[in-house]
Amino acid sequence: MKDHVYKLIELTGTSPLSIEDAVTNAIKRANRSVKRLCWFEVVETRGNIDKGKVQHWQVTIKVGFAIDD
Amino acid sequence: MKDHVYKLIELTGTSPLSIEDAVTNAIKRANRSVKRLCWFEVVETRGNIDKGKVQHWQVTIKVGFAIDD
Amino acid sequence: MKDHVYKLIELTGTSPLSIEDAVTNAIKRANRSVKRLCWFEVVETRGNIDKGKVQHWQVTIKVGFAIDD
Amino acid sequence: MKDHVYKLIELTGTSPLSIEDAVTNAIKRANRSVKRLCWFEVVETRGNIDKGKVQHWQVTIKVGFAIDD
Amino acid sequence: MKDHVYKLIELTGTSPLSIEDAVTNAIKRANRSVKRLCWFEVVETRGNIDKGKVQHWQVTIKVGFAIDD
Amino acid sequence: MKDHVYKLIELTGTSPLSIEDAVTNAIKRANRSVKRLCWFEVVETRGNIDKGKVQHWQVTIKVGFAIDD
Amino acid sequence: MKDHVYKLIELTGTSPLSIEDAVTNAIKRANRSVKRLCWFEVVETRGNIDKGKVQHWQVTIKVGFAIDD
Amino acid sequence: MKDHVYKLIELTGTSPLSIEDAVTNAIKRANRSVKRLCWFEVVETRGNIDKGKVQHWQVTIKVGFAIDD
Amino acid sequence: MKDHVYKLIELTGTSPLSIEDAVTNAIKRANRSVKRLCWFEVVETRGNIDKGKVQHWQVTIKVGFAIDD
Amino acid sequence: MKDHVYKLIELTGTSPLSIEDAVTNAIKRANRSVKRLCWFEVVETRGNIDKGKVQHWQVTIKVGFAIDD
Amino acid sequence: MKDHVYKLIELTGTSPLSIEDAVTNAIKRANRSVKRLCWFEVVETRGNIDKGKVQHWQVTIKVGFAIDD
Amino acid sequence: MKDHVYKLIELTGTSPLSIEDAVTNAIKRANRSVKRLCWFEVVETRGNIDKGKVQHWQVTIKVGFAIDD
Repeated sequence: MKDHVYKLIELTGTSPLSIEDAVTNAIKRANRSVKRLCWFEVVETRGNIDKGKVQHWQVTIKVGFAIDD
Repeated sequence: MKDHVYKLIELTGTSPLSIEDAVTNAIKRANRSVKRLCWFEVVETRGNIDKGKVQHWQVTIKVGFAIDD
Repeated sequence: MKDHVYKLIELTGTSPLSIEDAVTNAIKRANRSVKRLCWFEVVETRGNIDKGKVQHWQVTIKVGFAIDD
Repeated sequence: MKDHVYKLIELTGTSPLSIEDAVTNAIKRANRSVKRLCWFEVVETRGNIDKGKVQHWQVTIKVGFAIDD
Repeated sequence: MKDHVYKLIELTGTSPLSIEDAVTNAIKRANRSVKRLCWFEVVETRGNIDKGKVQHWQVTIKVGFAIDD
Repeated sequence: MKDHVYKLIELTGTSPLSIEDAVTNAIKRANRSVKRLCWFEVVETRGNIDKGKVQHWQVTIKVGFAIDD
Repeated sequence: MKDHVYKLIELTGTSPLSIEDAVTNAIKRANRSVKRLCWFEVVETRGNIDKGKVQHWQVTIKVGFAIDD
Repeated sequence: MKDHVYKLIELTGTSPLSIEDAVTNAIKRANRSVKRLCWFEVVETRGNIDKGKVQHWQVTIKVGFAIDD
Repeated sequence: MKDHVYKLIELTGTSPLSIEDAVTNAIKRANRSVKRLCWFEVVETRGNIDKGKVQHWQVTIKVGFAIDD
Repeated sequence: MKDHVYKLIELTGTSPLSIEDAVTNAIKRANRSVKRLCWFEVVETRGNIDKGKVQHWQVTIKVGFAIDD
Repeated sequence: MKDHVYKLIELTGTSPLSIEDAVTNAIKRANRSVKRLCWFEVVETRGNIDKGKVQHWQVTIKVGFAIDD
Repeated sequence: MKDHVYKLIELTGTSPLSIEDAVTNAIKRANRSVKRLCWFEVVETRGNIDKGKVQHWQVTIKVGFAIDD
């Protein structure tokens, strides 16, 4: 059986809606340039504030994908 | 007054919907075998990806409960 | 151009609904006494449990705001 | 010679007196259900405050014990 | 039911006697300017040494208090 | 599809041979009391020394297993 | 002898010149509203980039000052 | 003398044999697409378990390489 | 309004002069292959020593840049 | 004015009585071989257990002392 | 019974073979100048790479030994 | 080829001028008692403040040197 090797890249997704939506946006974008995404880990959750309201959730994740061949 | 003692156990809850739902699933399950759950702390937030989409949010929490008597 | 200085304060917001709502409550409260809030970072996510259910999400954040003049 | 295996459990002991007493309370309680306790490590020291005084020291420890057979 | 918001401030208490006394000194001082102190967490324990003896225990804590209204 | 819940327990395996063997010993022992072990993470690697030689590798791991039903 | 109590506040100083200058700016600003500043610790060093050049060094520090009386 | 610049990438190597073999597999794979690999640091050691045995060691490393010209 | 996505890459810049110069060298190099650099964070500061003197400051940073379209 | 240089050494003091006593024992011992001890920081608090009781508190500290001339 | 005091020193052992061999080399070397070595903890695992292969495993450990007199 | 062993010592250098100068002072002092210094890592950056100005930068580093023979 083959021993897989994976690469992890770090992305910050943003969304005015929620933490989950910011993560989803980052993964959607990663999926356009990398195939075979396998898992992610949340590294940091931040946001910017405008006029006393959260304007964007900024969630940094590591995304892992197979680079076997 | 009695000095309480608490035990902390570590669980990973999963959900296709949200971080909150994954936590809720873990606590619901803990509540079936342990009574007197008091608090939880989020330890790690991860997820697996299938076809470029988050398939499951995987949230690891510590749950504390009283073990006095 | 002016070199800004920012102050960071640490707050714990709570909500029965979600992590995002707990953060929003903390920022809303901060906005009543401090102007020019700029950004926040999530420091810790906890909660208390009552009768096997999450009663309140308790999210601790650092909030940064300009204190230039 | 045998290769021992140990299990670590996490407990929060409480006491109105001192950090040492809170740890002692947690270990005393653990000793009622687990034999062969070997060591502990302090993980976190907190407390609750009532009327401007420490009401309880809350010390979280990991306790290790042999589970060989 | 109301969603409380808490503020955390960071203090270093000192005492020639013990860690607990240093924490107590910090909380006593905080209680003079802030009402409704709820909990604390020990962040760091240090001390200065004079002529080969601990002169002061220096314990840094975070103290949380309600800022609801 | 079912949302799995996992429990993590912390174990210290020991071995005079290697880090891998210490981990294997801990997992072998866990497998006798828990079914459906899924994954592990190395938390700490230590050892005791006797007469200038490593006598036992002591490797602490977290082991996760499904507790669904 | 009196047991001092200190408060720590967190500030982000900025400067186009250097890390030291960003720290100095934060301390200079703190000194305008707080007397008896004693020490600081660097918590984080970041910066923003414009047209491929560091535009501002952003250094977050904790500053301690005596609050005895 | 030239001031080198290095890039660090994060990889997870896997192997049924050992931690060292998992690292070696990751570096071998990196060497196929990047020249001038200089050093690595182990970030995390995990593994998956099947039928009570370690099936694969999963070791995450950062690998540094020169990107001067 | 568009939800931006950012990628973070990790670089080690070196310089015989200063920490700031090492960071600047890393950013200058990144700017040659990546457009729209936005921010950086210092991750680690090290150096090598030759004949009792710092020969090179080695500063590892994460650099973030927009990857929207 | 002279720019002092300090060395930090790491010691584990032990005591059957308390955390403070374990620290005091370590400093007393350090003072026999090193002059001009200035400060200490608590790094880790552990202990061994015998027959369900704390036998020794084991407190690891860093101790700093001037090595100017 | 005597209250032991221990000193911890930090060493980096290297080996072309394995992590265990690098640790063993460091302990062997420590044993030549210090008697009564008791335990070690792995602090960091790194290595250098030459022509796409691990040339040396570099493992940093803390080693504790009794310094009672 | 020989497998080198290195020792790491921890020093705090101070300087009224800059972080770099504080590090340089610590290394200069280490070089008087230890030969073959190889590398350093910055562990902590602090400073003391007098009359609202940084009086001394206090930078703690680990310095590694070969102890082969």
